[in-house]
Amino acid sequence: MPTISNKGNSMPESPIRKLVPFAEDAKKRGIKVFHLNIGQPDIQTPKIALDAVKNNTIEVLAYSRSEGSETYRTKIANYYKKHDIYVNHDDIIVTTGGSEALLFTMGSITDVGDEVIIPEPFYANYNGFATASGVKVIPVISSIDDAFALPPIEEFEMLITPKTKAILICNPGNPTGYLYSKEEIQKLKALVVKHDLFLIADEVYREFVYDGLTHYSVMQETGIDQHAIMIDSVSKRYSMCGARIGCIVSRNKEVMATALKFAQARLSPPTYAQIASEAALDTPISYFEEVNVEYEERRNILIQELLKVPGVKVSSPKGAFYCIAELPVTDSDIFAQWLLEEFELNGETVMVAPASGFYSTEGAGKNQVRIAYVLKKEDLIRSVEILKKALEVYN
Amino acid sequence: MPTISNKGNSMPESPIRKLVPFAEDAKKRGIKVFHLNIGQPDIQTPKIALDAVKNNTIEVLAYSRSEGSETYRTKIANYYKKHDIYVNHDDIIVTTGGSEALLFTMGSITDVGDEVIIPEPFYANYNGFATASGVKVIPVISSIDDAFALPPIEEFEMLITPKTKAILICNPGNPTGYLYSKEEIQKLKALVVKHDLFLIADEVYREFVYDGLTHYSVMQETGIDQHAIMIDSVSKRYSMCGARIGCIVSRNKEVMATALKFAQARLSPPTYAQIASEAALDTPISYFEEVNVEYEERRNILIQELLKVPGVKVSSPKGAFYCIAELPVTDSDIFAQWLLEEFELNGETVMVAPASGFYSTEGAGKNQVRIAYVLKKEDLIRSVEILKKALEVYN
Repeated sequence: MPTISNKGNSMPESPIRKLVPFAEDAKKRGIKVFHLNIGQPDIQTPKIALDAVKNNTIEVLAYSRSEGSETYRTKIANYYKKHDIYVNHDDIIVTTGGSEALLFTMGSITDVGDEVIIPEPFYANYNGFATASGVKVIPVISSIDDAFALPPIEEFEMLITPKTKAILICNPGNPTGYLYSKEEIQKLKALVVKHDLFLIADEVYREFVYDGLTHYSVMQETGIDQHAIMIDSVSKRYSMCGARIGCIVSRNKEVMATALKFAQARLSPPTYAQIASEAALDTPISYFEEVNVEYEERRNILIQELLKVPGVKVSSPKGAFYCIAELPVTDSDIFAQWLLEEFELNGETVMVAPASGFYSTEGAGKNQVRIAYVLKKEDLIRSVEILKKALEVYN
Repeated sequence: MPTISNKGNSMPESPIRKLVPFAEDAKKRGIKVFHLNIGQPDIQTPKIALDAVKNNTIEVLAYSRSEGSETYRTKIANYYKKHDIYVNHDDIIVTTGGSEALLFTMGSITDVGDEVIIPEPFYANYNGFATASGVKVIPVISSIDDAFALPPIEEFEMLITPKTKAILICNPGNPTGYLYSKEEIQKLKALVVKHDLFLIADEVYREFVYDGLTHYSVMQETGIDQHAIMIDSVSKRYSMCGARIGCIVSRNKEVMATALKFAQARLSPPTYAQIASEAALDTPISYFEEVNVEYEERRNILIQELLKVPGVKVSSPKGAFYCIAELPVTDSDIFAQWLLEEFELNGETVMVAPASGFYSTEGAGKNQVRIAYVLKKEDLIRSVEILKKALEVYN
């Protein structure tokens, strides 16, 4: 019998996925499960995007351009201008989700055995893309006690080897909700220039920033045109996770020419999703304002309620729609499973994402969970009530 | 300045893509270009698929399941039954095009430096997927003089090393149009069983088979459940290249569990395209009958006309909608470019795909081109007329 690859064996399982059978069993037993575990917004997709697909007049659903149509890329460039990011359509390649943008980026700049430094906790699938690309993730630990701020630059420098190709950040961060300041981006700039590294910034949560703060993109920083690569996606911005449209943005022509070869091999990004994504760019600003008010209120309520729970540590995220909470448990994988398998409060329980999957350091984050605040406020309040009671019973 | 990867440098450029700027220039000069170079059918996408997307009632365009919905996979399994392929939905993972199916397969069964044996000429993007995966393509040459039949099994065996992980075939073949017989599949079966290899069959052109012949799938063959992996796609079947939906099919549970981890890392295949693809499964059989009559007529005319051109060698393809033609030129890359840059017949010219990109053996196929018969019959006749005249002028 032929065997699968070492790479395949090493591919991490999704930290959320592992619990899905337990959630399904709970539902079969008639238990209502509040999903705090996934970043699937309940927010409506802009009607303008949905309607564009409904009203399409395609007769032959043909390949589109590998890099995305020029009109769509030009519109994306215009959208960026509103965020003080000045690029043109040639600096953009449309991809099948932010996922593919990351894969093409890794393929373009890393060889097997190369290293990418990532502040952890980080988006769990970075581990998967790194494994798929044969790249080693070198974590630099950011601490909950410091609200997951950028670790000191000296800690990055200690980790740089001849194999280091890039630093990868997620800003605002999944799973921490941390928003990097302009000063922090500039510290990273100095670092990548000094050591000749790429700086990859996953900015898919750009619009979700609270407390009157402003997002500062790596693409706004001068002097790193050859270093900066931005990963983007329509998934969260327009509550269009199922579209699967993202893009790579960089002013480094060599990177873009290389990424284009990966894009050509897979022919083209999905056509219907491009129609939706292009139309979504005309979403009125009021949509984001309303969505942000909603998320900020949800965050406030979630954090306020969590802080009332004895033994829970959490800091208020400044962006995205996640937070990492430290719980008074020793193993959140076991606790999360217990919540689904053995606990209920009047027929209800909660599903959380154990945080260990968001770390690559063995054993890190074992007493933490990621909570996504993509539920209605009353459901968030009820969820924390359930969690509080569960912790009492568990301990 | 940070540098791109060796992998990125090694990624092959699409053999068709290179000529695009010359075609665009020709069009700017007012010249009509007949596209014999691409496999983008002009056939209408089934209305049932287009309408399903137009009539969708999505309000939140959410992630779908990483492996595709159970209902869609169950319907795919039912479709396969009609082709005497008996699998169930668990043996299927829905992917973003056949491209992603191949990438997940390579990731699941190969490590860097492993080898995959492929009869050449082969689909050019296999080179890209192999490079992206760090896999070495080992070509076994099939000959135009033999109508691109399966090379003798001894030639495969001579190439097998401890690094060999799989044999990959495309059936019916792009770019050759060759249809493997049941006997040939059985020869490959004996080979992969003997040497403990995977047998990957790209069967995206299953429906396009002519001369009353029948397609025989690797999934119909018994005794290779642990070896056989089928790659499939809706792109050509329903003239839905822009959907980007395909699938991996295998009864090997370990392969499927591994491929699923790659699928989970990229979250989900595109939702709208899945709606179109699921609906397309209800396309009446008459659609394929009509399409096949059309393609068979086009093939007959194309081959008949090509055989009239002095110095041209071509064999009649039994499936798909391509053929490889040998031309009386020494370098078809140069000739194809010349056709676009310097030649015209009453304001018209043709674009062909130089065949060298479909070989991995250096220098092979230099006097061959791939011709796709996805144009109307009168356009095919005119195209060969132009080609004939061009060869007269060129030589």
